[in-house]
Amino acid sequence: MQGVQGNRNEISQNLENKARLLVKCPDKPGIVSVLSTFLFKYEANIIESSQYSSDPEEGTFFIRIEFHCENLQQKSPMMEQEFTQIANEYEMNYQFYYLNRRQRSAIFVSKELHCLLELLWEWQNGDLETDIVAVISNHEDARSIVESYGIPFHYLPANKDIRQEVEAKQITLMEQYHVDLLILARYMQILTPDFVDYFENRIINIHHSFLPAFIGANPYDRAYKRGVKLIGATSHYVTNDLDEGPIIEQDVERVDHRDDVATLKKIGRKIERRVLTKAVKWHLQNRIIVENNKTIVFH
Amino acid sequence: MQGVQGNRNEISQNLENKARLLVKCPDKPGIVSVLSTFLFKYEANIIESSQYSSDPEEGTFFIRIEFHCENLQQKSPMMEQEFTQIANEYEMNYQFYYLNRRQRSAIFVSKELHCLLELLWEWQNGDLETDIVAVISNHEDARSIVESYGIPFHYLPANKDIRQEVEAKQITLMEQYHVDLLILARYMQILTPDFVDYFENRIINIHHSFLPAFIGANPYDRAYKRGVKLIGATSHYVTNDLDEGPIIEQDVERVDHRDDVATLKKIGRKIERRVLTKAVKWHLQNRIIVENNKTIVFH
Amino acid sequence: MQGVQGNRNEISQNLENKARLLVKCPDKPGIVSVLSTFLFKYEANIIESSQYSSDPEEGTFFIRIEFHCENLQQKSPMMEQEFTQIANEYEMNYQFYYLNRRQRSAIFVSKELHCLLELLWEWQNGDLETDIVAVISNHEDARSIVESYGIPFHYLPANKDIRQEVEAKQITLMEQYHVDLLILARYMQILTPDFVDYFENRIINIHHSFLPAFIGANPYDRAYKRGVKLIGATSHYVTNDLDEGPIIEQDVERVDHRDDVATLKKIGRKIERRVLTKAVKWHLQNRIIVENNKTIVFH
Amino acid sequence: MQGVQGNRNEISQNLENKARLLVKCPDKPGIVSVLSTFLFKYEANIIESSQYSSDPEEGTFFIRIEFHCENLQQKSPMMEQEFTQIANEYEMNYQFYYLNRRQRSAIFVSKELHCLLELLWEWQNGDLETDIVAVISNHEDARSIVESYGIPFHYLPANKDIRQEVEAKQITLMEQYHVDLLILARYMQILTPDFVDYFENRIINIHHSFLPAFIGANPYDRAYKRGVKLIGATSHYVTNDLDEGPIIEQDVERVDHRDDVATLKKIGRKIERRVLTKAVKWHLQNRIIVENNKTIVFH
Repeated sequence: MQGVQGNRNEISQNLENKARLLVKCPDKPGIVSVLSTFLFKYEANIIESSQYSSDPEEGTFFIRIEFHCENLQQKSPMMEQEFTQIANEYEMNYQFYYLNRRQRSAIFVSKELHCLLELLWEWQNGDLETDIVAVISNHEDARSIVESYGIPFHYLPANKDIRQEVEAKQITLMEQYHVDLLILARYMQILTPDFVDYFENRIINIHHSFLPAFIGANPYDRAYKRGVKLIGATSHYVTNDLDEGPIIEQDVERVDHRDDVATLKKIGRKIERRVLTKAVKWHLQNRIIVENNKTIVFH
Repeated sequence: MQGVQGNRNEISQNLENKARLLVKCPDKPGIVSVLSTFLFKYEANIIESSQYSSDPEEGTFFIRIEFHCENLQQKSPMMEQEFTQIANEYEMNYQFYYLNRRQRSAIFVSKELHCLLELLWEWQNGDLETDIVAVISNHEDARSIVESYGIPFHYLPANKDIRQEVEAKQITLMEQYHVDLLILARYMQILTPDFVDYFENRIINIHHSFLPAFIGANPYDRAYKRGVKLIGATSHYVTNDLDEGPIIEQDVERVDHRDDVATLKKIGRKIERRVLTKAVKWHLQNRIIVENNKTIVFH
Repeated sequence: MQGVQGNRNEISQNLENKARLLVKCPDKPGIVSVLSTFLFKYEANIIESSQYSSDPEEGTFFIRIEFHCENLQQKSPMMEQEFTQIANEYEMNYQFYYLNRRQRSAIFVSKELHCLLELLWEWQNGDLETDIVAVISNHEDARSIVESYGIPFHYLPANKDIRQEVEAKQITLMEQYHVDLLILARYMQILTPDFVDYFENRIINIHHSFLPAFIGANPYDRAYKRGVKLIGATSHYVTNDLDEGPIIEQDVERVDHRDDVATLKKIGRKIERRVLTKAVKWHLQNRIIVENNKTIVFH
Repeated sequence: MQGVQGNRNEISQNLENKARLLVKCPDKPGIVSVLSTFLFKYEANIIESSQYSSDPEEGTFFIRIEFHCENLQQKSPMMEQEFTQIANEYEMNYQFYYLNRRQRSAIFVSKELHCLLELLWEWQNGDLETDIVAVISNHEDARSIVESYGIPFHYLPANKDIRQEVEAKQITLMEQYHVDLLILARYMQILTPDFVDYFENRIINIHHSFLPAFIGANPYDRAYKRGVKLIGATSHYVTNDLDEGPIIEQDVERVDHRDDVATLKKIGRKIERRVLTKAVKWHLQNRIIVENNKTIVFH
């Protein structure tokens, strides 16, 4: 089955005049004024704007502005140039994202394919703002479905003894494909700090429990043993502490005494796929800011 | 039991420098700029801002800004004066709400007291930004609990034959108490158009079904008959079309074949009280804008 | 992609000794005793049993018993013979279901494929106790995915002018394939009474609203207009009253003012596919009894 | 405010002919047959029956039968006598519960009263099958509301230095009141093993987190720090391992970056009160069986 992304020409005409600006800076009066006035100066129209002040008196200010601007392509160098003055004055960390530059994603998968399939389905429907440039796996199970979507599939068997070697190959592939976002879709190999540091806040994992409960291996078995009445899944950015990275999204489903471990896994897969898909979408829409090992998600 | 609102002096010092501005106008570039620059001019700091564009090219723009401003009491006449020019230029409908002016609410109740109790409990905890100035009822059941909170209770028996007479008394009471918001907390009398028009978008009702299902009387009986697997409750502004007004909030709970009508009602009460309380809170926080018989709720 | 159902031999050895007995009769003391004693006589072991009394004094009794019985294949003729006496004495409507006789399902689909895909995925994982023997569609969109699963696909274009002719072909196909269950997976053609009567309580439909709200066409448009804060989907048995048949399962998702009709449809698809899949599973597990245009679902 | 329990005479006439039988035994064919035949012999009619087999071949069988039986009071000695033979033959652990013997509950509370109030409200409505015989607290905050319900209030200040002394007084009170069930409604003192062992599976606690996340103190602070997107509460039987006892019920609510710790606590209170109330109800309805530090809840 080939991937269908709709009429690319039509879509790109819309997207080339759209961008997002994400800013973080010390909170004080006047920030919204200077940002909106800046945009107005360039005849940009704000489509959506969300902000958060951790403490309006002395805290940190965060904002995400999505705007439309005629001739954005021509104006943007000048805009970015002028913006540096504002950024300096207000001590801003900031980033412009231009929607016509599609982010490039790679998906890592092992034997469980449900999350991968959900992502491929959403992508095919045009609901994931990304080019899925490659799928990497330590098993062959996903090859035929991935290739039926016209996506390159790379089989890299892995185990803890050859970890560094495998990761070196993975990093090479990520560079070759110019990957912006790595999605671990129930990829079961642990990543070393070298790999993780290489892609800080650019690796989204789905952990099959409701964090911080059941960190690590076999969470469904442990959930079963504990006799919880709800099981869950959590998507998060990967850090060097296993399952401790900033949480992006979580969800749960009700279970009871009749559900054995196999059934918990079946129920869990439904939660995993929707939680991972949401997290990936929001990341691609630049809706997530990481702060203090937590996320601010501008829905 | 007496009402306890905490240390009023301390609270009012905070509130006298806080206000909210709600604006609706035709969408075009520059609105956020002019609003935020206006506030900055008066040294106001934006605490929270939420906006919505129905269509950034040709639609309607809505914004809710909560801000803090030193010496707001002294500045506000001048601010409001200057703002009229902006409002004219941008064809704005707008309203300033000053947090130190607490809204005055009246609650109407019949025999079912669960919603009333939830509101009183929240109010006593300081979680409802209002003065509950009176409770009106067509039964005596609520008198003792209401008076134990130190709130005036008015017993006005009602039936459809004396409707206008009763409503006249109710309107008189609303005027005497200078009521801003009427909360129908399972008040079972139908209101005439005269009454409703008098308090447009200022009457919040809780209807014990998931609208638009089961409009009118006995929704639980009809839900039982239909064999739905979820029942719900809906809070909405009252209009002259029964149960057709703008929906503010809804929620549901799961039910099954074992739940008879009495059980549906018990389950329903839990939904009703939380849905009504949320709607009332959001209204008091000026988070709701009514447009096209629907609500925009800035959470 | 070929369908994989696991090792059929192994599975069928388990299943040939398993059966379910569903009974409905006037409630009175002694029913459970006579049923369980009957099963014990044949050395059956009850795996699961669920019952419901609409009114223990004078109402109707319903029970679903799943049991395991060595040499069930040999014993069952005698069991069924003896059971007729019990059934007569207690005025029972009853049915034995033998798990090794897999039910045969046909799926009807139009242009929206999400429900179909979910069913095919579940079926491939061995989680739907059925043989999907055919997919019927009034469009060609589903052909390639269906045929990749090794399932026969039948393209029958339809419109209201040739309805009877199309249905005649459909009935013929249902007979040829010996179909037990018809699943309308967003099949958008209305069925005539002749067709519906032919398959009483054997057609499961997914309606893309939270019934009884928004019966009929374009429910998402109407939900958008009404400004509901939750949208839903409902699976039900098809009767001759459009969208009025016994409800099997429903679920909802939260929406708000920012969600246009296209977004409501996207959110809705997720609800539709899970609600339809649950209903189909429960039907195949013989967990549903229809009574008074409602369902008793023994979870 | 006085407690109102409805017309006790009428209720007790219904209840004196109703009982529940809970059984646990090694699973084998014939158990349901022998139990239901036994009940039929005494002309009992089964109102509700729920069972669970951990493994129909070699596991444990659990059943809860609620039945109605004319002249139960007179028959029960003989029934219980005869039942001992069945119990011996099938190696049953079992218990008869007679509905006209109301269980006696004591509630322990500290400064947070929301759970207590919910229980008192449910009890007053006749929805908790118990006599609330006393409320014990280490603060005076709850005295007036408890006494307004006509319930004895005992103020027992406590701290870890005088723990044993306080518990000795508490045990004395529990004996004086013949308490069957202790409900810890946000009671913040840790109980010693002596106390816990005295009331095995008879103490229900509400822990203000979604176990096993955030065991111990200040769970909301830790949830805030971790940046979870859902917070929860868990009701469980108290064992000697803090927050490790068998979970009865859990529920969650969605939170986000804007919710500070105070807000998490407010949201959490709503979850706590409904989760605790459900657990208490199910315990009083004898719907809970504890097995392997988990619960089987027959809903």
